[in-house]
Amino acid sequence: MKEYLKHLSLDCVVFGFHSNQLKVLLLRMKNSGIWALPGGFVCEDESIELAANRVLKERTGLDQIFLHQFNVFSDPLRSKHNPAVSDMIRSGKTYPEESWFDERFISVGFYALVEFSQVQPKPDSFSDLCEWINLENIGKLMLDHNEILQKALETLRLQLSFQPIGYNLLPEKFTLSELRKLYETILGKELDRRNFQRKIIAYDILIHLEEVKQGVAHKAPSLYKFNLENYKRALEEGLQGRW
Amino acid sequence: MKEYLKHLSLDCVVFGFHSNQLKVLLLRMKNSGIWALPGGFVCEDESIELAANRVLKERTGLDQIFLHQFNVFSDPLRSKHNPAVSDMIRSGKTYPEESWFDERFISVGFYALVEFSQVQPKPDSFSDLCEWINLENIGKLMLDHNEILQKALETLRLQLSFQPIGYNLLPEKFTLSELRKLYETILGKELDRRNFQRKIIAYDILIHLEEVKQGVAHKAPSLYKFNLENYKRALEEGLQGRW
Repeated sequence: MKEYLKHLSLDCVVFGFHSNQLKVLLLRMKNSGIWALPGGFVCEDESIELAANRVLKERTGLDQIFLHQFNVFSDPLRSKHNPAVSDMIRSGKTYPEESWFDERFISVGFYALVEFSQVQPKPDSFSDLCEWINLENIGKLMLDHNEILQKALETLRLQLSFQPIGYNLLPEKFTLSELRKLYETILGKELDRRNFQRKIIAYDILIHLEEVKQGVAHKAPSLYKFNLENYKRALEEGLQGRW
Repeated sequence: MKEYLKHLSLDCVVFGFHSNQLKVLLLRMKNSGIWALPGGFVCEDESIELAANRVLKERTGLDQIFLHQFNVFSDPLRSKHNPAVSDMIRSGKTYPEESWFDERFISVGFYALVEFSQVQPKPDSFSDLCEWINLENIGKLMLDHNEILQKALETLRLQLSFQPIGYNLLPEKFTLSELRKLYETILGKELDRRNFQRKIIAYDILIHLEEVKQGVAHKAPSLYKFNLENYKRALEEGLQGRW
């Protein structure tokens, strides 16, 4: 049986975007009913990236997710001496020693960007529910998971100009208004519609499709998709563009 | 006596800038003569940030250094079964158990920005030399330290527009040419002198001083310092500036 490394865990902030809402994948813990980020432990022969991929595949059904480490959470008091958590997450698995869960845990934070419609949320053995929760409706989470979420959001904001965030969160075809809403949610502020459209089109990263969005009552908006080659180049320039 | 956490270490890429050169603080290991990044371990009651501060204070004499976590290095083979390293870094300290050094180590990478002239490099107990090495002269380093350095540089590039990198690496007073050289070294490309000056002055983050650089033969260049308030605001805008 596989053994996990001592005092090391990982937590994943999985972002999805649907109906103009930024959502986060959360688990409801079995006994306490408290919500938590999906997470897991690292096998003795595994890199933390592989561990995060394994955990996310179990929770979402998806492989090869866009996944980035963003911070390590190591406050000595973040998990130590927390018997409630220890009881909650203890399971039938074999851990290196009995006191394994009583150790302080250092957690590596990852954020993941997934296409909402592709995910089939699935609870783990500690939880009875795995669900998308709108960012604005997320309350108190387990341990320091609110802090982890906050830091993931800050990272997303910083990286909006040089990571393919739109590409990973939106379906293949989308409207300019959906793209703007995504940027607004991540940046936490309203953007001027005309200004946004002018700028985003000037970047030459979108392909205007000959289709309109279905199921819209009046004046159906055009659909776009990313011109991947130009998009990648623009992201690289975003990096050094100011000089 | 303090005990360290198992299989967890940290490595620091300390950048300094002097004579128009980006430099990295390195240690020469006692037995092998191989160069390595300054690093250390995490005490049982310590956050990794505190551990990194402690290590850097020992190596540089400086407190409250500008220090950022940037990546965790966790390839299962990066340090395991490496008796040479194990011998090299074993010392008189008390570790939790005899096999402590034979474990696989997961290392948290930090980069630090310091003002070159303030640092008093000091070897640790595993090394006989602690020195600034020009970025372009760095050869093969211990373990995966070249990879750690490379990733730190990439991070620095990405963060040039929204972290106070110039402020932390330059002395209080500097010339525009020194500032441009710093940007050129970090970005790894030449920048047009006039263009750079026009842009950097347009950001309104510099104060033009009534002094010129001393010890320059012809046409001594003007000295500048950062207008900290404007600089901080510009960095925040750098973050969201494109929208």
